[in-house]
Amino acid sequence: MPYFDAASAAPLHPVARQALLASLDEGWADPARLYREGRRARLLLDAAREAAAEAVGCRPDELVFTPSGTRAVHAGISGALAGRRRVGDRLVVSAVEHSSVLHAGETHAAAGGTVTEVPVDRSGAVDADAFAAALVPGTALACLQSANHEVGTEQPVAEVAEACRAAEVPLLVDAAQSLGWGPVAGGWSLLTASAHKWGGPAGVGLLAVRKGVRFAPQGPSDERESGRAPGFENLPAIVAAAASLRAVRAEAEAEGARLRALVDGIRARVPQLVPDVEVVGDAVRRLPHLVTFSCLYVDGETLLHELDREGFSVSSGSSCTSSTLTPSHVLRAMGVLSEGNVRVSLPAGTSEEDVDRFLAVLPGVVAGVRERLGAPVSAPSAPAPSGSLVVDSLGKRCPIPVIELAKVIGEVPVGGTVTVLSDDEAARLDIPAWCEMRGQEYVGESPRPGGGTAYVVRRVS
Amino acid sequence: MPYFDAASAAPLHPVARQALLASLDEGWADPARLYREGRRARLLLDAAREAAAEAVGCRPDELVFTPSGTRAVHAGISGALAGRRRVGDRLVVSAVEHSSVLHAGETHAAAGGTVTEVPVDRSGAVDADAFAAALVPGTALACLQSANHEVGTEQPVAEVAEACRAAEVPLLVDAAQSLGWGPVAGGWSLLTASAHKWGGPAGVGLLAVRKGVRFAPQGPSDERESGRAPGFENLPAIVAAAASLRAVRAEAEAEGARLRALVDGIRARVPQLVPDVEVVGDAVRRLPHLVTFSCLYVDGETLLHELDREGFSVSSGSSCTSSTLTPSHVLRAMGVLSEGNVRVSLPAGTSEEDVDRFLAVLPGVVAGVRERLGAPVSAPSAPAPSGSLVVDSLGKRCPIPVIELAKVIGEVPVGGTVTVLSDDEAARLDIPAWCEMRGQEYVGESPRPGGGTAYVVRRVS
Repeated sequence: MPYFDAASAAPLHPVARQALLASLDEGWADPARLYREGRRARLLLDAAREAAAEAVGCRPDELVFTPSGTRAVHAGISGALAGRRRVGDRLVVSAVEHSSVLHAGETHAAAGGTVTEVPVDRSGAVDADAFAAALVPGTALACLQSANHEVGTEQPVAEVAEACRAAEVPLLVDAAQSLGWGPVAGGWSLLTASAHKWGGPAGVGLLAVRKGVRFAPQGPSDERESGRAPGFENLPAIVAAAASLRAVRAEAEAEGARLRALVDGIRARVPQLVPDVEVVGDAVRRLPHLVTFSCLYVDGETLLHELDREGFSVSSGSSCTSSTLTPSHVLRAMGVLSEGNVRVSLPAGTSEEDVDRFLAVLPGVVAGVRERLGAPVSAPSAPAPSGSLVVDSLGKRCPIPVIELAKVIGEVPVGGTVTVLSDDEAARLDIPAWCEMRGQEYVGESPRPGGGTAYVVRRVS
Repeated sequence: MPYFDAASAAPLHPVARQALLASLDEGWADPARLYREGRRARLLLDAAREAAAEAVGCRPDELVFTPSGTRAVHAGISGALAGRRRVGDRLVVSAVEHSSVLHAGETHAAAGGTVTEVPVDRSGAVDADAFAAALVPGTALACLQSANHEVGTEQPVAEVAEACRAAEVPLLVDAAQSLGWGPVAGGWSLLTASAHKWGGPAGVGLLAVRKGVRFAPQGPSDERESGRAPGFENLPAIVAAAASLRAVRAEAEAEGARLRALVDGIRARVPQLVPDVEVVGDAVRRLPHLVTFSCLYVDGETLLHELDREGFSVSSGSSCTSSTLTPSHVLRAMGVLSEGNVRVSLPAGTSEEDVDRFLAVLPGVVAGVRERLGAPVSAPSAPAPSGSLVVDSLGKRCPIPVIELAKVIGEVPVGGTVTVLSDDEAARLDIPAWCEMRGQEYVGESPRPGGGTAYVVRRVS
């Protein structure tokens, strides 16, 4: 049963399992104690720290283990902001950071701090010059992911790190998605990561803070992990995390090249196999194992459900698959279609046969969902005499508003407009994205008295 | 090799190991995902929550899993204080809480809040009436451990909970040391615990917040664990924690009675076997598996080292075994001797033979340490003509100041005084404690010009 959601959590690497088992017996005691069980635990902890630091590219005393990547991000951001309080209260982040970074930013803003979001282009990448321009005086910290978790696009970390150095602003790099593939290039100041993304166990994050970076841990602390991560160390999991990081790094070059070729195949063939699809994210500067595409006129939740029935586990940034009913902030920031969104992230060892089976199954699944939703399949009908039409999609969820737009666009003459009334948050993103894909003109939106929004589209072809 | 430090960390229970192994295969995926691996993880998480809630005595939706007991305490205290901000900013704690509670109190005080410490008696217990009297208007939260981690004394939780109910103050009970032995009696509002104390794995704490308790989680949060514990769930460890809690509970009555008898034996025999020993903590209202005693004229670090060489792993609250060179705040609050302190906490399954071997080895080990330190062993020498003596112990560490006091007390006449000059923090606790043990009068202390403190003792017998 192929599992294609490695970017959420990877199955445990055999080396992680082996190390975990061994250290359940050897590493359960308190490493702060002086008796033999404690000394043994301390040795394991020290060795794990050295191995992890080597993979990260820092000194062992610059690295602490946290209970998760999320906690590493929270501790890193709050500590760095507090350490630079005298410089200013501005936090600069990309618009497509992981939610843990954005949540830390919300907390900072709620406490009176300032947060600047640097926008991204349609591929999901920030522009290094635009990022540099955001580093105004009073900036305490900048955050940039090494690669995006939803679309795989790599960020220009080395260039941004250089700009941060010039502006004397520390840069925190969230390397959660990339650390298993290799160290982060460039002069970062803080780095965070999460073991269960590379095949390590849950319960372990990494936080590296370079010597010389001002850092003031927030909240209660204790004597553990240099005062930066309170609570009894999760030692067996830490040992397993470090051992598996070393193991996946040894395989990274070969396995990365293999998965990159598989993903290239998906990127090329999905648009050939499935009509009305947009493959998103940078085609070249990207994670080796991850590809995301969006299918017009498809309900993301149904699509995931049908793929699950066929045996494929994938993820989605569509609004109907999230508890908030808003599309992924990443897709929104990129300005790309969010409906029928599918993220495929291949775990190490994924076979070509599994990918082929996925590509064989996908067209029928998408067609089935579209058919049930009554999506347009044929050529547009004859133009209506009127120059404009209004489609009332109030109360209908993604992808219905776009389906109804697509059905009637052929009924207005070239130069005429279709106004879609919708109260679904996803329409704000998906109607402009549909226009982009279809070569129609997106005129704009306006609030509608009595609720909802009117989206106006002009037919130009 | 007997390990007698279960109160720090217990070896993994076989059921925990088994459950961990099984859920490494079944529970590695993201329980928030809708595909089969995610649904399987969600089922495991839900089942673990139900089992843990049943053992705690709360509803499953009142309980969240945190990365450690320490994090549960930090989140519980900060959330409850913030939730009751309008009532006031006072936090009431016992003086002998775990350091995680006291650290959270320090953070609260640093942010402008008020912290009241309720003192304990010589057994380590708070007085319920004194605790009730501390619940003045403006109290946002009270914290009381179920039983003390260093001396095993049980606190009057049910009476204090009743007083809290009457004062309309929520009570947080840190049940880290006792939850494996049984549920906490009385009407607590919040409860915290730590899995590795009952034989579960590291990396799992519990935080229960009763419905109706005002609670506002602090810091960045996400959609996991009801917004009270951000970051990817450590699912295999959570499953193992819940399974082992149920397993140890099933054995608790029989094993508790067995260990209680072994500890009764230690409590009775140590003072018979070793001269100049004080057994501390309540003899009856106590944890079944834990006993603490202090040996006069002994350096705690050397004692632990010698016991380790003999194969026994124990813990100590002596100042010379801590990184801060101050004695345990618990022993200090109790006003008992801290030098030569030994905590013995028996893991489940400890054999009577191991305890007998410990008792056989202990007298020789203590005598050896005393001999090397030149501790007094014989009757006091003849009284000196002078009515008072000054002993200069400046620059000497515990237990030397007390040893030097004991050596000269016989040289002054009854009614005369010995003044000990010391700059060791432990002397502040240990000189009065020695007086209590020896039936001499502790007159008081005064700062000494040029550094250190003068402690005055009057010979009365």
